Formats: sequence, structure tokens, C-alpha cells
Amino acid sequence: YREFYQCDADVIGTDSLLCEAEIVLMIREVCKGLGIQDFSIKVNHRGILSGLAAIADAKGNETSLFVAIDKLDKIGDEKVKEELRTKGFSDKSIDRIFDILHFQGSNLNKLEMLNSKLEDTETGLKGVEDMKQIIELLSKFDLDAETIDFDIALARGLSYYTGTIFEVKINKVAIGSVSGGGRYDDLTGVFGLPGVSGVGFSFGVDRLYDAMEELKLFPEETDESTEVLIAHLDHETMLYGLKALKQLRREGVAAEIYPDTVKLKKQLDYANKKKIPFVIVIGSDEMKSGQLTFKNMKTGEQQQLSIEEILIQF
Amino acid sequence: YREFYQCDADVIGTDSLLCEAEIVLMIREVCKGLGIQDFSIKVNHRGILSGLAAIADAKGNETSLFVAIDKLDKIGDEKVKEELRTKGFSDKSIDRIFDILHFQGSNLNKLEMLNSKLEDTETGLKGVEDMKQIIELLSKFDLDAETIDFDIALARGLSYYTGTIFEVKINKVAIGSVSGGGRYDDLTGVFGLPGVSGVGFSFGVDRLYDAMEELKLFPEETDESTEVLIAHLDHETMLYGLKALKQLRREGVAAEIYPDTVKLKKQLDYANKKKIPFVIVIGSDEMKSGQLTFKNMKTGEQQQLSIEEILIQF
Repeated sequence: YREFYQCDADVIGTDSLLCEAEIVLMIREVCKGLGIQDFSIKVNHRGILSGLAAIADAKGNETSLFVAIDKLDKIGDEKVKEELRTKGFSDKSIDRIFDILHFQGSNLNKLEMLNSKLEDTETGLKGVEDMKQIIELLSKFDLDAETIDFDIALARGLSYYTGTIFEVKINKVAIGSVSGGGRYDDLTGVFGLPGVSGVGFSFGVDRLYDAMEELKLFPEETDESTEVLIAHLDHETMLYGLKALKQLRREGVAAEIYPDTVKLKKQLDYANKKKIPFVIVIGSDEMKSGQLTFKNMKTGEQQQLSIEEILIQF
Repeated sequence: YREFYQCDADVIGTDSLLCEAEIVLMIREVCKGLGIQDFSIKVNHRGILSGLAAIADAKGNETSLFVAIDKLDKIGDEKVKEELRTKGFSDKSIDRIFDILHFQGSNLNKLEMLNSKLEDTETGLKGVEDMKQIIELLSKFDLDAETIDFDIALARGLSYYTGTIFEVKINKVAIGSVSGGGRYDDLTGVFGLPGVSGVGFSFGVDRLYDAMEELKLFPEETDESTEVLIAHLDHETMLYGLKALKQLRREGVAAEIYPDTVKLKKQLDYANKKKIPFVIVIGSDEMKSGQLTFKNMKTGEQQQLSIEEILIQF
């Protein structure tokens, strides 16, 4: 994934938390629309992370803290603790952090806990407050508090996020994370529009594709492109077949004609290989009578039909 | 256009000229589908170009000849002649070439003329023969010989073409050429599949887009994305509005709610600017009675309706 496609949605110009709620709705809609059932929408807030940093006496060393705890999922407690010690965090600070990270409970329980733990940090309380409001807004869409997976360890690499942070994980696939995003209060300044809050997220299209392949979510019918193949026996019958081809296409039927004059068996093999469900065979008798051989490749059944009678089948 | 998107179609594994005819059909379909009326499908054949090279005694110098005459459109007769002289072509050779390039007549007349001029070159006659067959095949699709713009000077830069060559020009726009292609007998060898003939073409998507912009072919309605904006006056009415939002979306109506609590005028201005055709206004009266204000932004007309009555409008 060194070069990749992203599918983005952003709202800029407002700091309304409704946008965060809408992003959660959008992620759900996209995943469900693609047939993905088992996914988690991980959410956290930079304010809460700042609160944690304050508790851990991490002043000037915040990034090391965030980078370390973001790996908790992958490398586990001991390695994260080791990393924090190397970066100069005291055992006491590390214990305080892990007390919070290990807290078990519902999202609302977690928020209550954070409310008391972070009571001395303004940004921490702001993060808790935002999170509560997002949950309240989601409830208006009949989504309960557990719709999101509020993960206090989620930090994400990108340092420009200033508020809510999102990450979408598809469970039980190798790739896992397929989408991320968050609120950025200063990012638009880089593009000459300072002082405007925005929030957005993007799906990694290639990652999503690979995950869907792994989950076998692409329907078999996407293989089937041509509905009818016109087979023929010589140059004359091929030219005659072009007329049928034209009529089928005019009616919106995806039709193709075998481009070379070869044995009928080869043409039928081609249809089978390409999963083309119907074949029209044109020989000299068919050309004379106008009654074409219409063959159902699944059942093997075949009938003599005029092109008009064939058109009705589609 | 240093990095760009292409939209390709290729057939490999057959040398049937039906594929060339299908490409002409496809190009017409695409252009017409996009609303492009005035375009030319330029066609030539490498065999005919080889025949020209033989007539011009260009042995070992063919590429110079092709490169020069391909520019005829852009730089005109005199400059092409000058270039050919510099490259060592005799005046006699140049005259022979220009006699052919200047020939006036229908496509079938041109082919007759070439048939006699190129009678000593095998590849030249093959080119003429292929071109005639393509025209015959097109006639089976009710397209006359002039459907294609048979251009003896068309050479295209890519040296891997071995048969028919295509170029699509959109007339009366700055960009002009938006598509090209041709038959390649040896190209697949590069990818480990030697001895397989193929033919294909590609539209330059960015070029096509720019040409369509210039011709103003993108409909104005593509600007209109949201059908209804829900406007509100305070936090309470916004929360109430979320219910309406949910119902509208469930019915497939593209709806959004203004994310901040601001003056109604600002919300209506936003709707106008974004060309949103309808606005639902929710104040405390509307919340009590359930009769929402439904405003048509084009006519200015407004009615008091229940959400169910509003849903019927879409």
C-alpha cells in the first residue's frame, strides 16, 4: 500500500459534533452496503489523550506516549511498558496510564471514570464532554452507546488531528484497519484557509477491496458480463449474425459474436469458460429459415426461435 | 497530461477484423453517450504506411517518414516537406508521397487509388484489403463507409502497432485528440505471451473531461446533491430535526441538517448557495404541533406539513 486510492468524506467550516455522528453513520452504511457484517468503529479523542499525558507527567514527551500506547493491540502490555520506560516515563506514571487503559466497562462507564480521573485537565474534560455528546446524537438515530468502540489507547499516527479520532477495523481479516480519520482544527491553514475546523475520514479502497476478497464478498455474477454469444459456421453466417448482434444490443442485451470462423465446439467452450449463459448458433439452415438455434448453456436445452422470439427472453 | 487515467478496451487472441469494427462502434457509442456530437474517428493501417515508405524509397528511414507526415495536420505541407528533405528524401519521393496524401475522394475512392499505387507492396495491399473489410463489416451495422475518417497521413507515435491504427478527435475543442489505439501483433510477447494478435484503444479520461467541460456537456444538475436541508433554531429543535433526517434518509431522500445553531437566514443562504431545492424549518411551534414548515426554495412557497406529508413529495 505504498500508493493507494482513498475514498474521502470531509466537512469543513463547522465544529458541530453532528459531523462526528454523521461519520459514524456513514461508516456503518458503507460497511453494511458492502456486505461487511463484523467491523468495529474505534473512536477516541485527542483531548482525552492530552489528559492522559498530563496524568503521566509527559510534558514535552506526549508523542512518545501516544505512539507507544497506540501499539497496545499489536505488541501487548509488557512491550508498551518497556518502551515507555526507555522513553523516560516513571513506573508510577506508567501504572496510572495502565489503570485507565485497563478499565473494564461500557462506554458510558469509561466516560464516567475518565471524568473523575481527568478532572484537573481542561482538554481531557473537553474530550470526555465531546464523546458524551456524540453518543447522545447517535442515540437520536437509534444507535446505542456501544455502536462505537471507544478505545482510550487509539492514537493514530497523524499529528494534525485535534479532536475526535476514528479508525475502522474489519474483524477476522488479515488487513484489519481499512479507514481512519478525525477532526483537525488547523489543517486547512496549510491550504490558505486558517481558523476553520473540519472533520473527515477516508476508506483505503485497496485495503477494503482486499478485505472483501478475503471475506469472499464479491458476488459470482460479477464474472458474468456477456449474456449471449452468437456462434456461426462460416463467413456468410457470421455476417448474418452481425444483424442479430445489432438487434440484441439495441434492446440492451450484452451480446458478442465469436470473431473467428472456427469449429462450433471451440465457440461453445469459449462460452462455457466465460460463463455466458446463452448461445445463438447460426448455420446455413438457420440463415435460410430465420429460425435460429437458441441454446441455454446451463441446462443444455435448445430451441429453434426467430430473433424476435429470442429478444423476448431478455 | 503527464500522469493520466486511461479507459481501455482490448481484445487479444484473434486477428479478426470484426474487433476493429467493434472498436469503431464502441467509440461512437461512448461519444454519443457523453453527448459529444462532432467527432472524427481517424483510421489508418500500418500496412498502408509501409506501402508509402516503399514508394518513397524510405528503406531504413521509415520512422522519419511516418513521424513527419503525422504532423501534416499541425504544421502543414511546407514544413513536412522541409523535414523530409532534411531527413534525406528526394524531391521525387516527396512528390510521390504528397500525390497520395492530397488525393481527394471518398474512402472507397481512396482505397481504389491505393490499390493501384501500392500494387507492388504486399503489406500495402494487405492494409487496403483490411480497410475494405472493416468498411464491409461496418455496413452490416448500417454504418456507411464515411463513418470513419480514413486518413493516410495518420501514423501515431507508438511503434508497436502492426495493423489498423485509430485516433479519435473531438472537433472544435482545444484538446482535440482524446483517444487512440490500434492492432499490435507482437506486444503481448513483452508480457510473456508471444504470437498473439490483439487490438485495443483507450480514451484519455482527463482529456475527455476537459473537452466535455469546454463543450459545456456536464449537466447543471450534477451540482445539486442534497434535496432537503433541515433548518432549526436551537439545540432542542435540532435534536428533533434528527428524527426527520432519519426518516427522510430511510426513504432514500438525500437530506442534511444544518450542523450549527445559527440564524435562520444563514441556513437559508446556505441552502441557496448549495442549490438545495427544499428546506424544512423546525421551530418550537413546529416541534409542538408536528406540522413542519416545508419551503420550496425556487418558488419561495411554504406549507405546514407533517413529516409523512413531506415524505410523499419525494
